[in-house]
Amino acid sequence: MPLSRPDDVQFDLLGVGNAIVDILCHAEDAFLSSHALNKGTMTLIDVTHAESLYRDMASGVEVSGGSVANTIAAVGGLGGRVAYIGKVRDDQLGTIFRHDIRASGVRFDTPPSNDGSTTARCFVMVTPDAARTMATHLGACVELGPEDIDTDLVRNTWVTYLEGYLWDEPRAQSALRLAADTAHDAGRLVALSLSDPFCVDRHREGFRDLLESSVDILFANEDEARSLFEIDDLDEVVRSVQERCDVAAVTRGPNGALIVTRDDVVEVPAVSVPRVIDTTGAGDLFAAGFLHGMVQGWDAEACGRAGAAAAAEVIGHIGARPEDDLATIIGQAIGQETAR
Amino acid sequence: MPLSRPDDVQFDLLGVGNAIVDILCHAEDAFLSSHALNKGTMTLIDVTHAESLYRDMASGVEVSGGSVANTIAAVGGLGGRVAYIGKVRDDQLGTIFRHDIRASGVRFDTPPSNDGSTTARCFVMVTPDAARTMATHLGACVELGPEDIDTDLVRNTWVTYLEGYLWDEPRAQSALRLAADTAHDAGRLVALSLSDPFCVDRHREGFRDLLESSVDILFANEDEARSLFEIDDLDEVVRSVQERCDVAAVTRGPNGALIVTRDDVVEVPAVSVPRVIDTTGAGDLFAAGFLHGMVQGWDAEACGRAGAAAAAEVIGHIGARPEDDLATIIGQAIGQETAR
Repeated sequence: MPLSRPDDVQFDLLGVGNAIVDILCHAEDAFLSSHALNKGTMTLIDVTHAESLYRDMASGVEVSGGSVANTIAAVGGLGGRVAYIGKVRDDQLGTIFRHDIRASGVRFDTPPSNDGSTTARCFVMVTPDAARTMATHLGACVELGPEDIDTDLVRNTWVTYLEGYLWDEPRAQSALRLAADTAHDAGRLVALSLSDPFCVDRHREGFRDLLESSVDILFANEDEARSLFEIDDLDEVVRSVQERCDVAAVTRGPNGALIVTRDDVVEVPAVSVPRVIDTTGAGDLFAAGFLHGMVQGWDAEACGRAGAAAAAEVIGHIGARPEDDLATIIGQAIGQETAR
Repeated sequence: MPLSRPDDVQFDLLGVGNAIVDILCHAEDAFLSSHALNKGTMTLIDVTHAESLYRDMASGVEVSGGSVANTIAAVGGLGGRVAYIGKVRDDQLGTIFRHDIRASGVRFDTPPSNDGSTTARCFVMVTPDAARTMATHLGACVELGPEDIDTDLVRNTWVTYLEGYLWDEPRAQSALRLAADTAHDAGRLVALSLSDPFCVDRHREGFRDLLESSVDILFANEDEARSLFEIDDLDEVVRSVQERCDVAAVTRGPNGALIVTRDDVVEVPAVSVPRVIDTTGAGDLFAAGFLHGMVQGWDAEACGRAGAAAAAEVIGHIGARPEDDLATIIGQAIGQETAR
C-alpha cells in the first residue's frame, strides 16, 4: 500500500455522511414499480412519499444505517480509532442512531437539530432475489452544514472519508468541501465513496472536480466508476482512476474487486456465501475491511481481501451492520488468527 | 379439539397486551449481572434504569415486539381475522409498532396516549448461548385501562387472548378483567398466556382466580405452570390444568409440548433447528401456530405441531417476529402444502 499512517494523528478515520436509520422489509418486484422505485438503486423521496410508502410497506426491522456510517461503525467495531460527523434530530430515531454508532466505539459529537425534519429514514426493500432497493427521506440530514465540520478533528485524523450522497444537498456539499480542504491543508488524506450510479449521474462534474483536487482514495463499484468517467471499457476506467488517485477499490459484486494503485492493479476474488440474503451494505463493508487493512499497514491485496470478507459477512443477513465477529472473519481471509 | 369456532363472529382472535418495541443486542453474561438482570427472565425497569442500560448496551436492532402482539401479528400474517388492543404513545416508536402490526393484517385501533411516558421498550439481550434476557420499560403501556377495551370488538371475537404481563399494572388488570367478563358474557372464549415464571410469582393468586373464573385456554411453559400451582410434579400440574381449562398448551423448550384437554394429553415433539440463534418469541410463536390451527379446526395434535413449527422458525434468527413464510413451514409440519 503506497500510503502509510503518520504517528501524529489522534484518529485513523473520520466519516462524514448522511446519518440515517434504515427500515428494512421484504417486498415483491411489483411493489417497487407501483411506488416508482428503481430496483437496485437509491431514490430520494419527500416526506409525503415517505409516508405513503411506509403505509403500504410490510412489517419492518429498524437498524442504524447510512453508507459511510456503516463503514465507520464496522471499523470502530474492529478496534479502530474512528469518528463520525452527520446530522440527526433530537428524536427517538436520532437517539437510536447516536447510541448505535457510539456503542461501536465511534466518537460522534455532531449536535442534533432540535427543530425541522425528523431523523432521516431509508426504506430498504429486499426482493426475493436478495437485491435491495432504497428510498431515502433525508430529513434532518439536509441541515448538515460547514459549521458541523470540526476542523480540529479533521486535522487530527489520518483519512477523512466523504459520502458521495452528501452532494445531493448544497449545504452538505459545502461541508464536504471544507472537510476535504482542511484535511489536505493539514497533509491528511481524503477518501470518497461514489455511493450510487444515479448519484454520480446527478453530480458528475462536481465529483470529477473533487477527484482532481482532493481525493486520494476512491471507493466505487464498476457502474459508478464507468458513469463517472463516461467510459464503458473497464481497463480504460482503471487508467482514468490511476491518473487521479493514489488508491482505489473498484468493486464488482460477485466478480470481486480491483485494487488500483498508481502503478499496479490487483484483482481480488469475492468471498462466496452460502446464501445471499440482502446485499444492503456490501460496498460499505468492503470499504470497512479495506480501510481497516490500511490502518493495520497491510498491502493492497490483503486490504482487498479484508474488504471482500467483510462484504461477504453483511450480505449473509438482513441489514448493513455486521452481526458476526468481523475480526475473526477478516483474520481468516488474510490467514491470521484475528484481524486486530 | 374440543372447541369449535362459531359462525357469528367477525374476528377469530383478539389480543390484549403490552405494546412494545424490542431493542435487541448481543451481550455477555457479565453484562447481565452488572446490570442486575436475571438471565432468561423479564425484569421491569424504570426510566432511569432503562437509560443507563441503553447507554451501556451494544449496538441494537429495533423490531416490534410484545408477547401477545407477536402472536397476533403472526396469526395475522397467516391470514387470520385478528385484532389487537394495546397502548403506545404518539411518538416514533409508537408509529413503528402501529405500522408493523397493521402491516401484518391486524386491526389495531387503540388510541395512542399523547402525553406522559414514551412507547414501551424491551431491551432483549441475547447471550452467546442464544438465551434471551429481557428488561422492559413499560412506558405508555401503564396507561392502558378499561376505557381502551372495545367491548363490541370482544363480543365479535371468538377467542380473546390476554397477556399475563398486563397483571403488573392495576389499570391494565381492570382492562383484562373487563375483556374477560365481556367475552364470557357473550359466550366467547378467553385465552391467557402466563408470560413469565416471575410474573406468575408476583401475581399467583390473581392468575388462579382468573383461571377459575374465566380462562378456557391456557398457554404456559412448564416453569410457569409449576409456579402457578406450586407443584413440582408435571403429571400433577397437568391434572390441575385439566380441572380448570378446556385446552392448555404446556411448552417444554427442546422437550416439545403437552397439549392438555379435559380428558386427554398429547405429547408433541419440538421441531429441531440447525442452529438456535435467539429464543425470543418461542412461546409467542408456539401460541400463534396453535391458535391458527384452532381457527382452522385442526385436532389437538395438529395444533401442537403447528405451534412447534412456528416456534422453531422464530428461534432460528434474531427477533420475535417470523422472517420466513410461516404458512409453508406449518403446512410442512402437518403434512399439507400450505397451512392457510
